[in-house]
Formats: sequence, structure tokens, C-alpha cells
Amino acid sequence: MYRLYSFPPSGNCYKLRLFLTQLQIPFELVSVNLLNQETYLPEFLQKNPNGKVPVLEIEPDVFLTESNSILIYLAEETDFFSRDRLERNQILKWLFFEQFSLGANLSRPRFWITVVKQAEQFAPLIAYHQRLGNAGLGVMEQHLTTHSFFVGERYTIADIALYSYTHVAHEGGYDLSKFPNIQEWCDRVQSQPNHIRIDQNSRSLLG
Amino acid sequence: MYRLYSFPPSGNCYKLRLFLTQLQIPFELVSVNLLNQETYLPEFLQKNPNGKVPVLEIEPDVFLTESNSILIYLAEETDFFSRDRLERNQILKWLFFEQFSLGANLSRPRFWITVVKQAEQFAPLIAYHQRLGNAGLGVMEQHLTTHSFFVGERYTIADIALYSYTHVAHEGGYDLSKFPNIQEWCDRVQSQPNHIRIDQNSRSLLG
Repeated sequence: MYRLYSFPPSGNCYKLRLFLTQLQIPFELVSVNLLNQETYLPEFLQKNPNGKVPVLEIEPDVFLTESNSILIYLAEETDFFSRDRLERNQILKWLFFEQFSLGANLSRPRFWITVVKQAEQFAPLIAYHQRLGNAGLGVMEQHLTTHSFFVGERYTIADIALYSYTHVAHEGGYDLSKFPNIQEWCDRVQSQPNHIRIDQNSRSLLG
Repeated sequence: MYRLYSFPPSGNCYKLRLFLTQLQIPFELVSVNLLNQETYLPEFLQKNPNGKVPVLEIEPDVFLTESNSILIYLAEETDFFSRDRLERNQILKWLFFEQFSLGANLSRPRFWITVVKQAEQFAPLIAYHQRLGNAGLGVMEQHLTTHSFFVGERYTIADIALYSYTHVAHEGGYDLSKFPNIQEWCDRVQSQPNHIRIDQNSRSLLG
């Protein structure tokens, strides 16, 4: 059985809890506490030398890392990805956009403000990331003026990746009321079969 | 013929000039000047609503964006990518690592220090990114203790993506002498057939 190493508040880990649940693939959930530097212990660095979660152990001692590459691995033969070359490229485009233009810009302010509650100490970096993150959200908002989902007018791993931190952006000081198309898209994502919330237990044995 | 919109100093644009040249695919090169905000003019935003280069026009009015998704598009049927599921996942892993852990951390200090020469004004942000970037380089250095290339012991798009900003990291204030394995890997990348330098004209009609 797959084993997922996950820090519960992490959007990158949530992507995989959500997608594995929607694929109805059973998995063992192992909670890792980033706040204790657990991911930098030698035992964990053997799983991921980059010291980050999520890590998906697909068989004993075979570890996959980088959430979006794992989404692709799981989705390759399903309709959550695509067999069409150009459509596949569009999904990949949004996955890379998510990591570069959204990723740290949404996750770090949220981490500082909501997870470790050090907003004052990190105020200049929060403002720096928020300026970039609002630009990224603006690109998504514009795309959603003419699309129900990001690629192919259906729910794909592009939506899963983009949703993971976007729907909790307010916890990083973002004002999603400025992005009504994004809010409506979030509703559509939440109405997909087998959706689970970020704070919800998933279809796992443990955790 | 493909048309590549490129800002000459950009590592993300260099990836594509390099790979198209190595694939021996002819292309028209259109230089775009980021410093004039050209990528935020309405005409350019029609090509890429995210206001970024590179953009690859593969046929009239069909624009691909996000450098790493374009690398995959070009590589899919070649040995620069992989037909093996797990190896493909490893290549994708490094492509996402490159965008998240290296990308902005290497490119923004380089932009502020070397391109626009505003190191003093951006000193705190440069230090912030350098701390993260050195961690990313450390992960690469460790991987290269037991590997000649990043995946499959051969030159793939993972190497192209990682090389693009790494080999000019010193222009962002990084000290690559601390990473001898990376320096040797850079030599191996540079010795590949049809390699071009970042400041070198590529196999294009214009530019």
C-alpha cells in the first residue's frame, strides 16, 4: 500500500490526500511535523534529501517527491491528465505556474501568519510575496472569465494543484473577494466527487 | 517555423534556445526587453497573460508558456525525456524542484545584482533568496556525488532546466566553488553536442 508522509496544514500535501482519495487509492498516512524540523532528520532525508513533504512511498524504499510530479505520476493513465499533446502541455503549464507564480507566494505568508503566527517579524517578506501572489491570482481570475476549469473544461490535476493553496489564501492575508471567478471555481472544485477538505481526514488507515 | 520570444539574459529563455538548437529545430528568435515592461503591453499579454517570457509560438496564434512545460513538449518523443514511468517521474521531479527551490532564488538575485544593478536596494531580498538557493544547490551537490547527470546517467531536460540558472549563479552572488560536483556537472553539460552559451547566438534566423 502507498504510504504518504504529510504535514497536515501543507497545501502541497493536501493535493495528494485529495487526489488519492478521489482516485479511491487506499494509502497509509504518516503525519510529519515540520515545526520540529522532523524533515531534516537523517532518517527523513533518506526519503527526500530536499527535506520537504509530501513524500509518497510507492513501494518499500521507493520515494516520490515534489507534489506536482506525484500528481502526474498518479494521473498519467486517467482523465485527470490528457492523452492529447497540446492539452497535456496546458495542464503542465498550469502545474509549473502553480509552483513558480503561486507556490511560495501563497504558502509562506500563510505559514508565517497562520501556522507559526509570526506575521510581524516577517512583515516585509509577507508583503513581497503577496504582491507577487496577487499577480498570480490575477492571471487565474482572468483565465476563469472564459473557463469553468483550467484545462479542457473539466476537472484535472491542474485544478487540484491550483486549488490547494488558493482556497486557503485568506490565511496568508489575501482577499479572495477581489477574485469572484476564483471563488466560483473553488465552489466547482469542492463539488467534485469524493472531495475532502484540507482539514478533513482522508480515506486512509492511519492519521 | 517556431517563433521564440526571449529576453536574452533570462535563464528560462536560454533553456529553450539551447534545447531547440540541440534538437536542431530551426526557429525565429524575437528579442523582448523585460526592462521596458514590454511583456505587459496588451499585444504581448495576448500571447502570455502572465506577462512572462519565454513564449514559444508553435503555429500562428498558438503560444506555449512556462519554460519547463515547453521543454517537455519538445522532448516527449526523444531520449531527452523518458518512456519509463518512474524515470519520467524523476525528470519531472527535478523540473518542479528547479522552478520552486532554485528558480526565483537564483534568478532574482542575479536580476537585481547583474541585470539592473540594484544590489543595495534589494539587499534583504537578495539575502533571503540566497539562503533558500544555497539549500537548493546543496541538494543538487549531494545528488551529484553519485550521479553524472540528474536522471538515468544521461543528459536529459532535467539537466537543461537545472543548468540554465545554476551555471550563472555567481552573477547572483553565489559562490559555486563550494559546490565542486555542480561545477564538474556544468562541464559535462557544456560538452554536449550542439551546446551554446547563454550569451551566444543560437541556430536562429533573427537575433
